[in-house]
Amino acid sequence: MGEKIAEFRNRWEKISRLNHALAVLHWDMETYMPEKGINGRSGQISLLSEIAHKWLTADETIRSIEAAELETAGDEYYSDSAAMLRAARRQYEQQAKLPESLVVQFAETTAEANSIWVKARSDNDFPAFSQSLEKIVSLNREMAECLGYRESPYDALLDLYEPDMTASMVAPLFNAMKERLVPMVKAVSEKGNEKNPLEEMSFDVNAQERFGLMVLGDMGYDFSRGRQDRSAHPFTTSFGPWDVRITTRFHEQDLLSALFSTIHEGGHALYEQGLPLDMTGTPLCEAVSLGVHESQSRLWENIVGRSREFWGHYFPKLRKHFPTIPGGINEDLFYRLANRVEPGLVRVESDEVTYNLHIFIRFEIEQELIAGTLRIQDLPERWNEGYRSYLGIVPPDDARGCLQDIHWAHGSFGYFPTYSLGNLLSAQFFNAAEKAVPDLKSRIAGGDLGSLKEWLNEHIHCHGARYTMPELVKEVTGEKMRAEPFLDYLEIKFNALYNMG
Amino acid sequence: MGEKIAEFRNRWEKISRLNHALAVLHWDMETYMPEKGINGRSGQISLLSEIAHKWLTADETIRSIEAAELETAGDEYYSDSAAMLRAARRQYEQQAKLPESLVVQFAETTAEANSIWVKARSDNDFPAFSQSLEKIVSLNREMAECLGYRESPYDALLDLYEPDMTASMVAPLFNAMKERLVPMVKAVSEKGNEKNPLEEMSFDVNAQERFGLMVLGDMGYDFSRGRQDRSAHPFTTSFGPWDVRITTRFHEQDLLSALFSTIHEGGHALYEQGLPLDMTGTPLCEAVSLGVHESQSRLWENIVGRSREFWGHYFPKLRKHFPTIPGGINEDLFYRLANRVEPGLVRVESDEVTYNLHIFIRFEIEQELIAGTLRIQDLPERWNEGYRSYLGIVPPDDARGCLQDIHWAHGSFGYFPTYSLGNLLSAQFFNAAEKAVPDLKSRIAGGDLGSLKEWLNEHIHCHGARYTMPELVKEVTGEKMRAEPFLDYLEIKFNALYNMG
Repeated sequence: MGEKIAEFRNRWEKISRLNHALAVLHWDMETYMPEKGINGRSGQISLLSEIAHKWLTADETIRSIEAAELETAGDEYYSDSAAMLRAARRQYEQQAKLPESLVVQFAETTAEANSIWVKARSDNDFPAFSQSLEKIVSLNREMAECLGYRESPYDALLDLYEPDMTASMVAPLFNAMKERLVPMVKAVSEKGNEKNPLEEMSFDVNAQERFGLMVLGDMGYDFSRGRQDRSAHPFTTSFGPWDVRITTRFHEQDLLSALFSTIHEGGHALYEQGLPLDMTGTPLCEAVSLGVHESQSRLWENIVGRSREFWGHYFPKLRKHFPTIPGGINEDLFYRLANRVEPGLVRVESDEVTYNLHIFIRFEIEQELIAGTLRIQDLPERWNEGYRSYLGIVPPDDARGCLQDIHWAHGSFGYFPTYSLGNLLSAQFFNAAEKAVPDLKSRIAGGDLGSLKEWLNEHIHCHGARYTMPELVKEVTGEKMRAEPFLDYLEIKFNALYNMG
Repeated sequence: MGEKIAEFRNRWEKISRLNHALAVLHWDMETYMPEKGINGRSGQISLLSEIAHKWLTADETIRSIEAAELETAGDEYYSDSAAMLRAARRQYEQQAKLPESLVVQFAETTAEANSIWVKARSDNDFPAFSQSLEKIVSLNREMAECLGYRESPYDALLDLYEPDMTASMVAPLFNAMKERLVPMVKAVSEKGNEKNPLEEMSFDVNAQERFGLMVLGDMGYDFSRGRQDRSAHPFTTSFGPWDVRITTRFHEQDLLSALFSTIHEGGHALYEQGLPLDMTGTPLCEAVSLGVHESQSRLWENIVGRSREFWGHYFPKLRKHFPTIPGGINEDLFYRLANRVEPGLVRVESDEVTYNLHIFIRFEIEQELIAGTLRIQDLPERWNEGYRSYLGIVPPDDARGCLQDIHWAHGSFGYFPTYSLGNLLSAQFFNAAEKAVPDLKSRIAGGDLGSLKEWLNEHIHCHGARYTMPELVKEVTGEKMRAEPFLDYLEIKFNALYNMG
């Protein structure tokens, strides 16, 4: 390794270590921190965030990138050196545009907003949160102005989560989805659902945990480099590829919720654990984008975890863990129960078909908020109108309406669309895997989840951030991101489930 | 508040936040971190240690201390400003003497030594650890030379844990202890112990945990500002006074071990939780010394937790938690079982009487190692000789001999004597509390632990680092640190227990 590239890696490693330390502080905050610990924690977090931002945007950083670029000027486009310097420069150029005062103000505002939101949601009191949201929207606008954009300020924010995507690139994909999803939801709703015999049962939480851990193990999640804990909202976090943790939450009344959340987070975690270990501390050992991340979680949760093949293997095991499951429930019925489509109010509880409609509503609203065409005080009504038009139902209160998600309180605008992009990619990636491993589904039916994991490791995870999202999609699938594979997948699956088409 | 003192406090708060973030990383490492997480964690820890050291020893730090000193020159000696600047200057002057390269080398060497020690201990292989220990001793000598000393290099190290104490101040205290303890151990050993009917029982770990948590709650430990987790070695850690955590470990075969460890760590934690909240982020919101810290843990563990009064109240509750305790065991017998004196090989399992003998051995050995009069390869024999002479027994192997403690692997020389100093102080402090609250023991017998906690809060904890250790002892007890109160306490207690004297 040349001297300059070594110097660059050394510098980046420090930034990366700081970010991983920050992730530990966040993880603890969500899992084990006692109630009043927040009084000290927010200061620790804002301090480390400030240092990390300072280091990333320091002159020394861009000088070390430039020196390493010169030194490795002859290297191939996708070589380690060229790819990592490209990724580093991108992050530098983005973050260097944000003045430190804005970063600090943003961190402080969102830290405060978070607890205000928690209380507002539990009190069903939107006005109590509206001032914080006003501030957050305005800080996001300010950030967008600093970051720069071609078409709309929203693009600058979206770019933070999904590099190089813009609202006008997302819109046609979402329109294509709407065109087929809205009628699909309508048709399914008319069919109606059979009674759910699991509904009034309860399920031992420890048995739920054991079952989930078994599935995680089968997926190839490496417990020597991770663990599962409990938190109010499930998430995956990485302290580097040597320590990738997930969380879940259990409900006694609901057998499926924690299980699918575990599989979902497991998908995220396999990605982080699969990043190239020898690139630890470099920008190559980072995920490409949130859309790609979500493709991994949704692929495992839905395409695998809610498949008939999966339950052919796991239902008998599930019955052993929960002997009270009525004998009348068989694999076919259980598969149907895991795939009930029903327009609902809450995104995180929604099924594969309606899920994206929740996203479209948020995508529209956050564009309007950033553009200033929607006033904060009108948000609840706008939200309800979105639900009426896309899902045909209206939230009875804001707690189950526009206060349900944490994202805006976290300060994130432009994050939501990546969920739907992830859904599209999940189908394209699974198709590619099936092309390479033609008996993939029967392997899954036989309980072999490792074949899929290995394919994902070799074709997606191991690249880290070597490719951009579009480059990766092209490399893996031979095509661009598009909506049809996902829509076809849904149509075939749910037409069969609901005897339609 | 003046501008300069505000600037100083602002700077110190950042250093303090960094140290608390570091403590979170350590806590997680000992409690929840998966096996391979260490590959990333050691780099995160060494990076934050490096920044914290850099900030503390930067020119800006001493300039901000000096400016604030000038601004507050008229303030009283024990005023907030004067006391916090004194404490800050002390830390600055000490740490600024250590070159950064030495600090980093020390952090790296001890991080590595830690895992080598773990393996060497489990393999009972002292030679495997000797090279690391050699390096650590030599780095400690180097540190001592940088720090400076009047009488011996060891004093410079002791000063890191017990400011302003020297080996020649410790020695007369230890000699006074030896003079009475050695014959006491001999006399008790000749008396022998009754059979322990708990010995072959087992005790549900969850019930042990519940009982311990109840006692912690009674002690006034604030669970909204802390929690108890499990780790291989029990410890207390503070992320600031808003989040003070303890750990313990449970053994099914041993009812007393986890319980007394919980009370012990609870004593440390009450101290940290009792530090002045309005001084958070200043040097005043820090403990005075390790000796004072240990006085709090030992006071609760031994003087309270192993007292007849305590068990008068708690034994009936214990029986409810563990209905299998034989009916033949009553409060008196249980009190005796909790106070069995028996020369043993392992410090952390030793009783109140023999405990200090373990410390004397380590104190002698570490002085010899630092002075260079003892060679590393001769350490095991020297250790065994110490045990033969003080306790009349010889370890059958080094795992239960000179490899038993983690301290040297951590790089700590000069730490051990603070344990015995803490024992001395615990008796002096308890006597002072009893003088102020004459019915303190009967309050404890009635299950009121809060009176003692409040007294400690008001007379010791709330001062933080306002006084030095000798100043605090004088302030609280009206006298200097001395050995007699502790020795008298032991003599009265154990003469009665063993029908002697």
